[in-house]
Amino acid sequence: MKKHPKKDKIKHSGKPDTCRHKNPVQPEQRLRGASLYGFHAVREAWLNENRHVQALYCTQSGLDSFQEALEITRAKGLERPVPQILDKQSLEKILPPGAVYQGLALVSSALDDVGIEDILIRERKNERSLLIILDQVTDPHNVGAILRSACAFGAAGMIVQKKHAPELTGVLAKTACGALEHVPVAFETNLSRCIETLQENGYFVYGLDERGEEIASANTGGKSVLVLGAEGPGLRRLVKEHCDGLLALPMRGPMPSINVSNAAAVALYEFSKS
Amino acid sequence: MKKHPKKDKIKHSGKPDTCRHKNPVQPEQRLRGASLYGFHAVREAWLNENRHVQALYCTQSGLDSFQEALEITRAKGLERPVPQILDKQSLEKILPPGAVYQGLALVSSALDDVGIEDILIRERKNERSLLIILDQVTDPHNVGAILRSACAFGAAGMIVQKKHAPELTGVLAKTACGALEHVPVAFETNLSRCIETLQENGYFVYGLDERGEEIASANTGGKSVLVLGAEGPGLRRLVKEHCDGLLALPMRGPMPSINVSNAAAVALYEFSKS
Repeated sequence: MKKHPKKDKIKHSGKPDTCRHKNPVQPEQRLRGASLYGFHAVREAWLNENRHVQALYCTQSGLDSFQEALEITRAKGLERPVPQILDKQSLEKILPPGAVYQGLALVSSALDDVGIEDILIRERKNERSLLIILDQVTDPHNVGAILRSACAFGAAGMIVQKKHAPELTGVLAKTACGALEHVPVAFETNLSRCIETLQENGYFVYGLDERGEEIASANTGGKSVLVLGAEGPGLRRLVKEHCDGLLALPMRGPMPSINVSNAAAVALYEFSKS
Repeated sequence: MKKHPKKDKIKHSGKPDTCRHKNPVQPEQRLRGASLYGFHAVREAWLNENRHVQALYCTQSGLDSFQEALEITRAKGLERPVPQILDKQSLEKILPPGAVYQGLALVSSALDDVGIEDILIRERKNERSLLIILDQVTDPHNVGAILRSACAFGAAGMIVQKKHAPELTGVLAKTACGALEHVPVAFETNLSRCIETLQENGYFVYGLDERGEEIASANTGGKSVLVLGAEGPGLRRLVKEHCDGLLALPMRGPMPSINVSNAAAVALYEFSKS
């Protein structure tokens, strides 16, 4: 078995955590560091013991909707700041234009960096394990929705290419509806090498491709990886060649093409069933 | 069998077609009437014989990408205006801010209004027929993505509530990637009555609801209707009570909830398989 060059090392990006321990700062400065907004994204981050939360800004109605989450962290003794009520206008000034935030915005440290080695260690003893790789899917709405579906259908991790991946904040986190706190996302430089490592560790790797065999007929139990490319270009040649098999969704309609997050949902559903 | 009050009548909204035969007008005025943009949305509308197209505005590179579509309409003898090349800045002035238009914008008449009676007439002789009803799903990105999936998985029509539905232009059309030209969309006032009409015409109506039976175990062949509610509130009580059965997607993960367009894709896939 080839040894992965970085095996057994847990990687850190080395970026400074600009948010941590910088009190007191203005809301504007804080939200520039790391921003999460929207009920589910904020709730799950607030409850995540691995998040260091610096500030929770909310409207009065946002705070009202958040009482249950406050209760849980109080009961658990989790260290959390006192929520700060702002009026709508002040809150919107420190959020991206047009953000749907449901009266809640959170400033927190970034999640610890994760590598596929961490995911492999975690999944070692599981007979069934489902992972998803995104090959240059870059739209944060799509990546967020895929992360949400991955979480719902029990995937153990998502792997994205470091150079072509959106940040794990803002729109992506909002669209993921809290899934960011449950599904580890690994940023890898070389997806082909990553696929090799997964294969060496007992995973069978399927690429989603219109020329593949029908997905329902595949044996997708055990340890499986689903690889999706961007809409249009699809999987890159080298990534496709590294897959153990290619699967297609059966589409009989006049325009046999669907949104990449919808395709991911169907495939994850089919994998999780078997 | 109860008689549907409006049965056999094909309804029209009565709105004037503000775009038709109003030459010459400035691009700004025209695009206010009906706007479609983005390669697939524009291509499928351009090729749709039921569309009266007033103008195609494009950048030079947009025009280059459109040559195959121009060839088809020329070969068919379909009446189409001469494309007008604009520079990027001028084109962006007459499009919504941030629109992803791929160098192409189309001004066309609206599609003819469709009622469920039209869909029923069209589907009368089919043994298999799949329809989708959206109960107050309002986000145009979601509705567009659902329409695209409905088209890909062979659905014969989509029904939405007149009062709570986005317009069939712009973002919705862009997200639907041309599916708007292939799947009729009926705007109905009363969805419960609409469900009754469909039932009287041999359709079995399934609502998607987390308390339903597992979707894969349902007999979803023949004539079926899939009803989806908005995320959060789900199906309204009366609509739910009108369904013949409720179906759920099996989700084993820590947050068993997915985006409504992703849920629709999974359900449409499952229905189209059986």
